[in-house]
Amino acid sequence: MIYQSEIELTTNGHRDLQDITKLAEHELAASGLKSGVLHLFNIGSTASLGTIEFEPGLKRDLPELLDRLIPPSPQYGHEQAWHDGNGHSHLQATWLGPSLSVSFADGKLVLGTWQQIFHLECDIKPRHRRIVVTAIGER
Amino acid sequence: MIYQSEIELTTNGHRDLQDITKLAEHELAASGLKSGVLHLFNIGSTASLGTIEFEPGLKRDLPELLDRLIPPSPQYGHEQAWHDGNGHSHLQATWLGPSLSVSFADGKLVLGTWQQIFHLECDIKPRHRRIVVTAIGER
Amino acid sequence: MIYQSEIELTTNGHRDLQDITKLAEHELAASGLKSGVLHLFNIGSTASLGTIEFEPGLKRDLPELLDRLIPPSPQYGHEQAWHDGNGHSHLQATWLGPSLSVSFADGKLVLGTWQQIFHLECDIKPRHRRIVVTAIGER
Repeated sequence: MIYQSEIELTTNGHRDLQDITKLAEHELAASGLKSGVLHLFNIGSTASLGTIEFEPGLKRDLPELLDRLIPPSPQYGHEQAWHDGNGHSHLQATWLGPSLSVSFADGKLVLGTWQQIFHLECDIKPRHRRIVVTAIGER
Repeated sequence: MIYQSEIELTTNGHRDLQDITKLAEHELAASGLKSGVLHLFNIGSTASLGTIEFEPGLKRDLPELLDRLIPPSPQYGHEQAWHDGNGHSHLQATWLGPSLSVSFADGKLVLGTWQQIFHLECDIKPRHRRIVVTAIGER
Repeated sequence: MIYQSEIELTTNGHRDLQDITKLAEHELAASGLKSGVLHLFNIGSTASLGTIEFEPGLKRDLPELLDRLIPPSPQYGHEQAWHDGNGHSHLQATWLGPSLSVSFADGKLVLGTWQQIFHLECDIKPRHRRIVVTAIGER
C-alpha cells in the first residue's frame, strides 16, 4: 500500500539545517502502515535530505564541510551563465542528494538513538520547501 | 504494484552527463501507475545517477568538481593492482551512488522546474549502460 | 508485498569495509519475491552503505579518500562539544548516506559483475551493527 503527502518548510537560506524527524514520523503515523520504507524527496535542485546526529556541533560542521569542499566561486560555469551566486548550492545539493528512504517497523521509523532526519538548505536565500513523503508498506 | 523495465544509454566516456528525465517519464507512463516512487539503478560500478538543474554550466561544473576532489591518480590501490586508469571513476561513482528514487503523483514525476534526472558516466571510455527502472505504486 | 528482516554485523572500527552482498541476497531469497527493490538501512549515524567493486585496492582507497576529504580534526563543533574523537565519522557517514536500494528481477539482485554491496564502518571503534532489509516487490 502507498500513502503520499507533503511536508512544507520555511528555511533561512544557506546552511540552514533542520531536524524534520518528527514531521516524518507524523506522516508515517497518518499512513497507518506498520512495516515498510518511508521515502522523502525534496522538490527543487538546491536543498538536500539525509540523516545525522542532530546536535549543535554537527549542525555547524556539515554545512561548513560542504562550503570547504564545494565553496562559492565565480568560476563555476553556472555562475558565468546565470550570475545568481548559487552555483555551489546546486553542486552541494546534487552531491548530497534530494531524497532519503528510512525503514519502518511496528509503525515506527527504525532510526538509531542519535540518528535524525535533516533537511539542509543549500540555496543562498530563504526558501519555501516542499518535501514529498511516500510511505510504502503493509498494515 | 510493481512495474519494471530498463533504460539503455550509450555514453561518450568520462564526464558525459546526460539528462534522462524524459526516458524516466516514459517508463513511468508505461507503468500506468499514478502515485508512488520511481526507482532507478545503474548496473555497474563506474557510473552514477542523481538530480541537477540540467544546464550547460552545471553540466560542466559537476564533473569538474568530481575530478577536483577525486582526481585521477596512479596512487590509488585500484591502479596499483589493475593499471586500468579508472580508480577515480570507481570512487566518484561510489560516492555519488548508483541509484535514485523520485516520487510521482497523478502519474507525473514530482520534480522541481529546474530539477532533472542525470546519468553521469565516470568511466574513462565510452560505455553501453543499462539502468533498471522500477515503479512502485498504485493506479 | 513487503518482507522485512535484519542483517547483523560486527565491525573492526574505522575504515572497516565489508562486502555484504551475499547477506543481502540471502534475505532476498528468504522474501520469496521475484521483482522489485531491496532497501537496506544502517541503524546509527556513523556507518554507511553503498556499492563498489569489492577488491583490495578500492577497499583501501575508499576509506583513504574519505579521510583525506573529511579528516579527523579537533576543530569540528562535534569534537568541541563531545570530545569523543569521531566528528569525522559522523560527517563521512552522513555524506555517504545510511541507505541503499538495489533493483531485483527474477529473484536476483541486478548488480554488475564487479558491483558489490558494502557496509563501511566510519566510527573509531569496533561496533555491532544492525541493517534493516526491506524487500518491496511481487512474487
